[in-house]
Amino acid sequence: MTKQALIIGAGAGLSACVARALKQDGYEIGLAARTLSKAEALTKEVDGASFTCDVSQPQDVAKLFHDFEAARGAPDVVVFNPSYRARGPLAELDPAEVLKALEVTAYGGFLVGQEAVKRMLPKGSGAILFTGASASVKGYAQSAPFAMGKFALRGLAQSMARELHPQGIHIAHFVIDGGISSADRPNPEGEPDKFLDPDAIAQTYMAVLKQHRSAWSWEIELRPWVENF
Amino acid sequence: MTKQALIIGAGAGLSACVARALKQDGYEIGLAARTLSKAEALTKEVDGASFTCDVSQPQDVAKLFHDFEAARGAPDVVVFNPSYRARGPLAELDPAEVLKALEVTAYGGFLVGQEAVKRMLPKGSGAILFTGASASVKGYAQSAPFAMGKFALRGLAQSMARELHPQGIHIAHFVIDGGISSADRPNPEGEPDKFLDPDAIAQTYMAVLKQHRSAWSWEIELRPWVENF
Amino acid sequence: MTKQALIIGAGAGLSACVARALKQDGYEIGLAARTLSKAEALTKEVDGASFTCDVSQPQDVAKLFHDFEAARGAPDVVVFNPSYRARGPLAELDPAEVLKALEVTAYGGFLVGQEAVKRMLPKGSGAILFTGASASVKGYAQSAPFAMGKFALRGLAQSMARELHPQGIHIAHFVIDGGISSADRPNPEGEPDKFLDPDAIAQTYMAVLKQHRSAWSWEIELRPWVENF
Amino acid sequence: MTKQALIIGAGAGLSACVARALKQDGYEIGLAARTLSKAEALTKEVDGASFTCDVSQPQDVAKLFHDFEAARGAPDVVVFNPSYRARGPLAELDPAEVLKALEVTAYGGFLVGQEAVKRMLPKGSGAILFTGASASVKGYAQSAPFAMGKFALRGLAQSMARELHPQGIHIAHFVIDGGISSADRPNPEGEPDKFLDPDAIAQTYMAVLKQHRSAWSWEIELRPWVENF
Repeated sequence: MTKQALIIGAGAGLSACVARALKQDGYEIGLAARTLSKAEALTKEVDGASFTCDVSQPQDVAKLFHDFEAARGAPDVVVFNPSYRARGPLAELDPAEVLKALEVTAYGGFLVGQEAVKRMLPKGSGAILFTGASASVKGYAQSAPFAMGKFALRGLAQSMARELHPQGIHIAHFVIDGGISSADRPNPEGEPDKFLDPDAIAQTYMAVLKQHRSAWSWEIELRPWVENF
Repeated sequence: MTKQALIIGAGAGLSACVARALKQDGYEIGLAARTLSKAEALTKEVDGASFTCDVSQPQDVAKLFHDFEAARGAPDVVVFNPSYRARGPLAELDPAEVLKALEVTAYGGFLVGQEAVKRMLPKGSGAILFTGASASVKGYAQSAPFAMGKFALRGLAQSMARELHPQGIHIAHFVIDGGISSADRPNPEGEPDKFLDPDAIAQTYMAVLKQHRSAWSWEIELRPWVENF
Repeated sequence: MTKQALIIGAGAGLSACVARALKQDGYEIGLAARTLSKAEALTKEVDGASFTCDVSQPQDVAKLFHDFEAARGAPDVVVFNPSYRARGPLAELDPAEVLKALEVTAYGGFLVGQEAVKRMLPKGSGAILFTGASASVKGYAQSAPFAMGKFALRGLAQSMARELHPQGIHIAHFVIDGGISSADRPNPEGEPDKFLDPDAIAQTYMAVLKQHRSAWSWEIELRPWVENF
Repeated sequence: MTKQALIIGAGAGLSACVARALKQDGYEIGLAARTLSKAEALTKEVDGASFTCDVSQPQDVAKLFHDFEAARGAPDVVVFNPSYRARGPLAELDPAEVLKALEVTAYGGFLVGQEAVKRMLPKGSGAILFTGASASVKGYAQSAPFAMGKFALRGLAQSMARELHPQGIHIAHFVIDGGISSADRPNPEGEPDKFLDPDAIAQTYMAVLKQHRSAWSWEIELRPWVENF
């Protein structure tokens, strides 16, 4: 039986690379994004199915998993990528933006994690991967909303790991500590691999998926060789 | 001029002890709680002023600081204690409760912190103390909402420390790692000081307030001598 | 040209599994142990070369790398496993044992790391893997010497990562958080995979070796699915 | 009965300030340094007793505590400050210097801690304070020996806290995250309090000593308001 993967927050470079790596490994791919257009090209490329979903809305997330399950069955792998951030001096931040950062980055992670777990528990297996950032472990000045959302997502992932590893579900949290390279952000001339190659990140996601349950990681940090940390 | 303190989430044991310690140190005390009745006795005891406030509501928090300032001027010390938690297997948690945990524990911390900072920046001084818990640094099984809220509050406090320390505002986050003793939770017979004495916690809050700016702590953990950690 | 690996502290289950995994990946294998007899069977199995070395002795470590280089050239991968521990109430520990724990676990790691780096810098490539333990990040009661040695080894690895990653040498530190299964320590009846399978650990070592330099991990924790953490 | 304090590594600015603060609080002061001349002026100032001791030598440390006890009785407070560091590219470090860094910074901490504990356990009380640095929690490039020593000292302190807190002995580890001001290192013109004032550090040492056992800290970080962290 073909294994099923669902990638949330599709469209971005990392999601696409993870989708391709999973496809190559034999998974069937589901892609969820706020707007279908974002995931269109990728959906075609990996011969996947696409879904729309605002991860901060419980009914959206419930519908996503209901539809996915109806079409594909319970997911074996779920990857959660979305985040929302607002920057600026603390005194000048718009409270509505701060709330949104929490709702998308952290509450969205919970909603997705919960729906995934409900479908993985009966099988006693599955993996849920959460994408974090430098801000998951370090609260930078003028970036409180991102720190709040990413710290909370990390707390969720750690709590889930403690609860769900003994039930056979692998929870992993990735601290992506650096910028990800893309068409819009190429490595500067003469500074090769200054930014994380999203294919290289995806390679470690796949390695974690293949870990034997006697030696699971719950958290993995990744950064470019030249990154100051 | 008398120094002004505002304690948010008043009524609980820790808030009362912090209020008394600040009073004894010469501060005038403001107490904010969801319902006035909660803070009534304490208000009388410390000859303070009380306010109602749902910390998860921006307009409530704005009004609280507006009213406090009108009566007392800008606060010198603000203490943030509120939290909301929900427990249970991840698959069984009520999403509305998870959102509320984030809104009270973390978003409330931001709203209070922001209003405080707006009033402290013009003076270039002040202190904001956030009360954390074991869950601030460890995500326990079956306790994801509390971990999410407290991790996020810690991310907020750390980001604020990095931004605001160089502007003269002291941000401190306290990891209270153990149960707090109270009338309802006395130390067991033969196990003295098994739970944190809220007066002892307040003593360290006061010590941090008195730190010289050349040697500030941004995070302090406190636990009973017999606590397993 | 065949890639060269040198595994220090050979003989134990983990070293053997790492040796086999490297061999299968095409590496030629060198094995170093305090006594040749310890590594004999494994040397034969992986068609490797064996060396004697007390890692706490500078001249031993220098000779090891000199001899290895003479026979095989500069190593591409070096794995450091040795540790020494003493247990007991702090007041009852033998100081000589504490010093030995530091010398084998931490100073040995430095001596090996330094000799490896000297040979990798000219090539601008290579990888050095350090094996840590739960005690690398948590100082347990009645186990101060092990915590001292493993904390120090972690400090070494982190410092080396900051210095040497930008020079093309990958430093990785593995926090093995649980018991490793072996013939002497099989998983209990009815508790499958309660201990880390050394082959499963080796699989993650290999995955880290294959990471692209744009997305390197410097630290990876591994624990059994049922481990309490 | 007068309380007795013993400060190891006397002479430096911090030791002197801690000695004065303890003296003012009513303690009788013992000062130990590698050479008596280092502690002479301070000994006179605080009307204390001075001792010579190389903290990396078991017999020296044993004699120090024996002599102190004979003159003053069991110490109530012991402060450990010594450290030794070597800097440079990893490949160029002198192994003998690395070993010395471990012996002074970490092994010395153990020897002092052990002798102190032996005398505090019978009373079921006492406090041992270890002075750490930024390098206690962050391994900087080109500074492996200092990281190794300070990480190890932190592992020792954490292990001791877990073991000895429940026996009534307070262990505290201070992460001094920044430069300490002194006659040789005054704050730059126009940058007040850029370096830690040793009197300000001593103030927090005293606050920790006064903590009630129901709310003990085992680790406290201190840094200047303007320090980048």
